[in-house]
Amino acid sequence: MHVIEIDDPADPRLADYTRLRDVNLRRHLEAEHGLFMAEGEKVIRRAADAGYAPRSFLLTRRRAEALSGLVADAPLYLVPEETAERLVGFDLHRGALAAFHRRPLPSLAQVLAGARGIVVLEDLVDHTNVGAIFRSAAGLGVDAVVLAPRCADPLYRRAVKVSMGAVFTLPYTRLDDWYGGLDELRGAGFHLLALTPGAGSLPLREALAGAGPDRGVGLLLGTEGDGLSARWLERADARAHIPMSDRDVDSLNVTAAAAVACYELSLRGGGLVHRGGTGG
Amino acid sequence: MHVIEIDDPADPRLADYTRLRDVNLRRHLEAEHGLFMAEGEKVIRRAADAGYAPRSFLLTRRRAEALSGLVADAPLYLVPEETAERLVGFDLHRGALAAFHRRPLPSLAQVLAGARGIVVLEDLVDHTNVGAIFRSAAGLGVDAVVLAPRCADPLYRRAVKVSMGAVFTLPYTRLDDWYGGLDELRGAGFHLLALTPGAGSLPLREALAGAGPDRGVGLLLGTEGDGLSARWLERADARAHIPMSDRDVDSLNVTAAAAVACYELSLRGGGLVHRGGTGG
Repeated sequence: MHVIEIDDPADPRLADYTRLRDVNLRRHLEAEHGLFMAEGEKVIRRAADAGYAPRSFLLTRRRAEALSGLVADAPLYLVPEETAERLVGFDLHRGALAAFHRRPLPSLAQVLAGARGIVVLEDLVDHTNVGAIFRSAAGLGVDAVVLAPRCADPLYRRAVKVSMGAVFTLPYTRLDDWYGGLDELRGAGFHLLALTPGAGSLPLREALAGAGPDRGVGLLLGTEGDGLSARWLERADARAHIPMSDRDVDSLNVTAAAAVACYELSLRGGGLVHRGGTGG
Repeated sequence: MHVIEIDDPADPRLADYTRLRDVNLRRHLEAEHGLFMAEGEKVIRRAADAGYAPRSFLLTRRRAEALSGLVADAPLYLVPEETAERLVGFDLHRGALAAFHRRPLPSLAQVLAGARGIVVLEDLVDHTNVGAIFRSAAGLGVDAVVLAPRCADPLYRRAVKVSMGAVFTLPYTRLDDWYGGLDELRGAGFHLLALTPGAGSLPLREALAGAGPDRGVGLLLGTEGDGLSARWLERADARAHIPMSDRDVDSLNVTAAAAVACYELSLRGGGLVHRGGTGG
């Protein structure tokens, strides 16, 4: 890292950091330049540890030491707090930011190789939900995530942050073909369970048992509100629900449903036995 | 409902709806006037169904029919879209709003009467998390929620919305005494499990089995990030963790942890058998 002090928020070297809360602007800017943003020391270090190449780092002057020890061949921009706030659009106070180069997504075959349990996300729109699902999936031993073509981007800043960096360590890729995508996954040996509160579904545990002990399982989760598309419901091998009480609640939100489903999946082979974790 | 058309966002009759995104202002205003806000037709109907008394309703003119059939002795303010946006601070477009009177919280004894599984939230600060936990707890058959004195308010607009109205149907109350609160719960017959990724904790299922089949269980969840306080960890009967894989994730976020813990609790008595639900 070579340190460069900049005062002017309009300096073109800071262009990667423009208006971080403007979702539409950022989607275009990040796609065009092949970058993603990491926020906070812990997440930045995890991106670097996962082998992503940094384009630059941004810190306020009073936090200049925050990323010490991080070895990288990229500029570190040190800016006054007012400059940071005008540039990114919010108070950076204790924060650190970094822009990283994206990498091409792995092929479906690479992501599925050796995987036993995967999560398949159809058209989720909320980056917070995508990030939280990656964190739960990684923590609960899911092997990979597969995204439908229109699912929200796991490398969007908010998803990265909420995932606590799990988007860097949990392998994932995106299907090219929404319509035929599930047939491709089934062809790769996965028993596909559509999570849905709809009629005609089995309790989750029973549905998982129906996959048989030797087959990989794909847990399909649909968009916030409307759930899975008719096409995906139809092309799944079975439908599963999480048993609900009668207290006028007919479903969980998608991140809670994902956590429960990944947990139940983790119990399938006798359960995870490594380390403990809750809260946070 | 008697319909009143108002154009001026500064009209004092609209004061309940001022700047809904200004959390500090709203906290004072709602506490002082003993009100809470409900947003969206479904949630408004659920508040009314649960017996909360409305103070007023707010709709834009093009949505005047949205709350038809809802019988209430309260004014319905119809406003132009620009008035709504200037008043509440965001685009109301398809939305409906209502202000309801709060009720005194029930006593701890009332909330615990007949309860077998409860969730106890220490100092959560995020209203979205509180709302999501109420939705999961209600859906998964938890009987009541008990809040520490400083836990975020379940009747705050965002919590109400994310809970999909579960804050109206799931009984809850607040402890007066943070320091001695857990002893009070234990005195009422509950085995208290502290969810924590810390060392010395049991896997969740094993910890639940340790409660014995006849005793009520309280699942304790702590603040985002730091988790439970040292005091509550010390006063719990046992510590429990959700078994994690080794993928650099040491814990779930608090709403995911709550969903998994409530799910595991729901399996304790042979499981819920009522209705199915996931996604949404």
